[in-house]
Amino acid sequence: MVNWNDKFAARTAYMRRSTIREILKLTQRPEVISFAGGLPAPELFPLERIREAMRVALDNRGAEALQYSTTEGCNDLRDWLAARLSRNGLRVTRENILIVSGAQQAIDLVGRVLLNDGDHLVLENPTYLGMLVAWRPYNLRFSVIPTDADGLVVDRLETVLRQNPKLLYLVPNFQNPQGVTLSYERRLQLVKLLHEYDAVVVEDNPYGELRYSGEPIPSLLELDARHRGSTALDGHVIYAGTFSKILAPGLRLGWVAAPAAVIDKLVQAKQSADLQSSTLSQILAYEVCRDGFIDGHIERIRRVYRERRDVMLAALERHFPAEARWSKPDGGLFLMVSLPEHLDSTELLKEALNHQVAYVPGTDFHIEGGNNTFRLNFSNAQPDNIEEGIRRLGVLLKTVLVHQPA
Amino acid sequence: MVNWNDKFAARTAYMRRSTIREILKLTQRPEVISFAGGLPAPELFPLERIREAMRVALDNRGAEALQYSTTEGCNDLRDWLAARLSRNGLRVTRENILIVSGAQQAIDLVGRVLLNDGDHLVLENPTYLGMLVAWRPYNLRFSVIPTDADGLVVDRLETVLRQNPKLLYLVPNFQNPQGVTLSYERRLQLVKLLHEYDAVVVEDNPYGELRYSGEPIPSLLELDARHRGSTALDGHVIYAGTFSKILAPGLRLGWVAAPAAVIDKLVQAKQSADLQSSTLSQILAYEVCRDGFIDGHIERIRRVYRERRDVMLAALERHFPAEARWSKPDGGLFLMVSLPEHLDSTELLKEALNHQVAYVPGTDFHIEGGNNTFRLNFSNAQPDNIEEGIRRLGVLLKTVLVHQPA
Repeated sequence: MVNWNDKFAARTAYMRRSTIREILKLTQRPEVISFAGGLPAPELFPLERIREAMRVALDNRGAEALQYSTTEGCNDLRDWLAARLSRNGLRVTRENILIVSGAQQAIDLVGRVLLNDGDHLVLENPTYLGMLVAWRPYNLRFSVIPTDADGLVVDRLETVLRQNPKLLYLVPNFQNPQGVTLSYERRLQLVKLLHEYDAVVVEDNPYGELRYSGEPIPSLLELDARHRGSTALDGHVIYAGTFSKILAPGLRLGWVAAPAAVIDKLVQAKQSADLQSSTLSQILAYEVCRDGFIDGHIERIRRVYRERRDVMLAALERHFPAEARWSKPDGGLFLMVSLPEHLDSTELLKEALNHQVAYVPGTDFHIEGGNNTFRLNFSNAQPDNIEEGIRRLGVLLKTVLVHQPA
Repeated sequence: MVNWNDKFAARTAYMRRSTIREILKLTQRPEVISFAGGLPAPELFPLERIREAMRVALDNRGAEALQYSTTEGCNDLRDWLAARLSRNGLRVTRENILIVSGAQQAIDLVGRVLLNDGDHLVLENPTYLGMLVAWRPYNLRFSVIPTDADGLVVDRLETVLRQNPKLLYLVPNFQNPQGVTLSYERRLQLVKLLHEYDAVVVEDNPYGELRYSGEPIPSLLELDARHRGSTALDGHVIYAGTFSKILAPGLRLGWVAAPAAVIDKLVQAKQSADLQSSTLSQILAYEVCRDGFIDGHIERIRRVYRERRDVMLAALERHFPAEARWSKPDGGLFLMVSLPEHLDSTELLKEALNHQVAYVPGTDFHIEGGNNTFRLNFSNAQPDNIEEGIRRLGVLLKTVLVHQPA
């Protein structure tokens, strides 16, 4: 008998199944109203357009759509993305783009090419769980910067940058899990600091296109170029995007936009990881997006998610106890609730499931604290279900607060 | 300015673009007859069937085909693979199967969960380049076992197994680059040794279905179960397979079959790497394969590749100088040529390209030696081109041998 525990690499000691994905399995009972996932609404997938694009892809490209392609990605799609990212004075070229298998792979590959064991990472608290899991094997040292309603408190950054950290990781738009957005003023301040300290930031932007209120804010990628007085993508930002939230996650397609020297290393890491992303998915995504369809489609997603966000915010006002606080996101898929500090949202989840409603406890997103928080997804539930699910949670929370007052 | 070379992780010092993939770019000029790639013949992709399967997938599954799914893979496809692998007394279940993004990802994930820095790996010489590249960051110590016409010389293994290596890596069927196959007797001998020393082998089997002559030989996975007197997949073998060579590589779909404890760790590694493989590709592959279509399709591939292999072997006899030797594979995509030892196939490649013909030099596949060897692919060229390409190479080699006799 092989004793596999003797064989596994030391780094697998850290490995445990992601809490979110395990909860997702438990919450698939139809009677549970789940705000736990991060799933886009499947009823919005543009099935007809995808069917047609697939027909075009197979008719016009034939076997090419099924053959090996380059690790960098299909040039049509890279060019389309480069043009789309060329905004606010930034000019992106094909050499700045790598197609990856979803933004999660962007994070994984960035880790492979930039992180050494024990490196110093600066992050917001709370932060994206999937990054924490992917980068856990590197035994990173964390500098944790708090956030408020305007995102990362950049005033707290300079002291940390003096220590020459390897990398900053941020989700500046409608962050997962809080839904908060880094303000324009703080972005300018941040970019100035990046230049002053020659620091590098990973700008993870899966939700940027999904804005429901307020004005769009230029990306760090764009502001970095502007700060340099340049149009070239050759600065301090490594940018990750994805088709998962604007088209369909089942295609597993995302992209990295970065200085060509970084793309070059990422290409080599990707070659080892999986050779390339699906040729068929890439050609399909290009055929779906090419003639402006995607902008109309994103507008349609925005309308539906905006309503769901508004329904959730109104239901929270109506049903939640006065002791609860929550973020009010201008976009994205999530908001976050804070309970009085003596309550533990992981403990409460068991009772919530008894009430046929689910969320994700905030603990795993936090480097420090957060046991009293939980994340709610509003993109993947019908308004009626949002109202009813929040009502159930409200009843539970009020009961708990009667029995366990602060 | 960011000095990226200061930022890159130490492990990227090893990174260089794969020679094969770089050469592939150079050989895409239409006038070059290239035996360099490892591409399946695109004219054999079952376009009509794929078109129909895509229609069924989108009609019957709808949004499910485009949504997130589980990291493990779609159950229909896992069950189909489990049934297919249940042969020769072995019974594979869904829990033994992980769907991955091509066999390259299988290699990458196995490295992540099993390899520590400096671990001891046993491999055949020459071996698969993509494995060497993927596992280079682990600074492995190699024990290199020679091969002959019957594959790995297993007699040379026992001394090495006494040192308790972490892992063996083998391509037992129609190996890349040589095309040789590990004989039945040696497989029995190998499995016995695995049990004696509690050793673990990665059986990488991308070409196993593509046999053109001789009798099929049970896999190490099957023989390992038989040796244990068990039907369960719970032994010493981690098996990797792929749809790339029997269906289409552009789907990026492969699988790992392994003890459930290993699959469990691999699932967690895959979650960090890319969450899951494309839902659409998985459902498509299942719809293509489900009712026995794939067996007829594989038979069709076999017929075409068998002819190409035969044409290449005949052309080699006809055109190559007496000083050259080459392997005579019973299947797969490749054979390997050995020149007199004083010739360097990397140097010769430049002249070959001047003669409008390309191959892959053997050096990178070898841990030791091999500078006088090169790999020829016969699956992705028409018989006429095989004849003409081998003729061109033969002319070159004869000229070189006149000017540089041994």
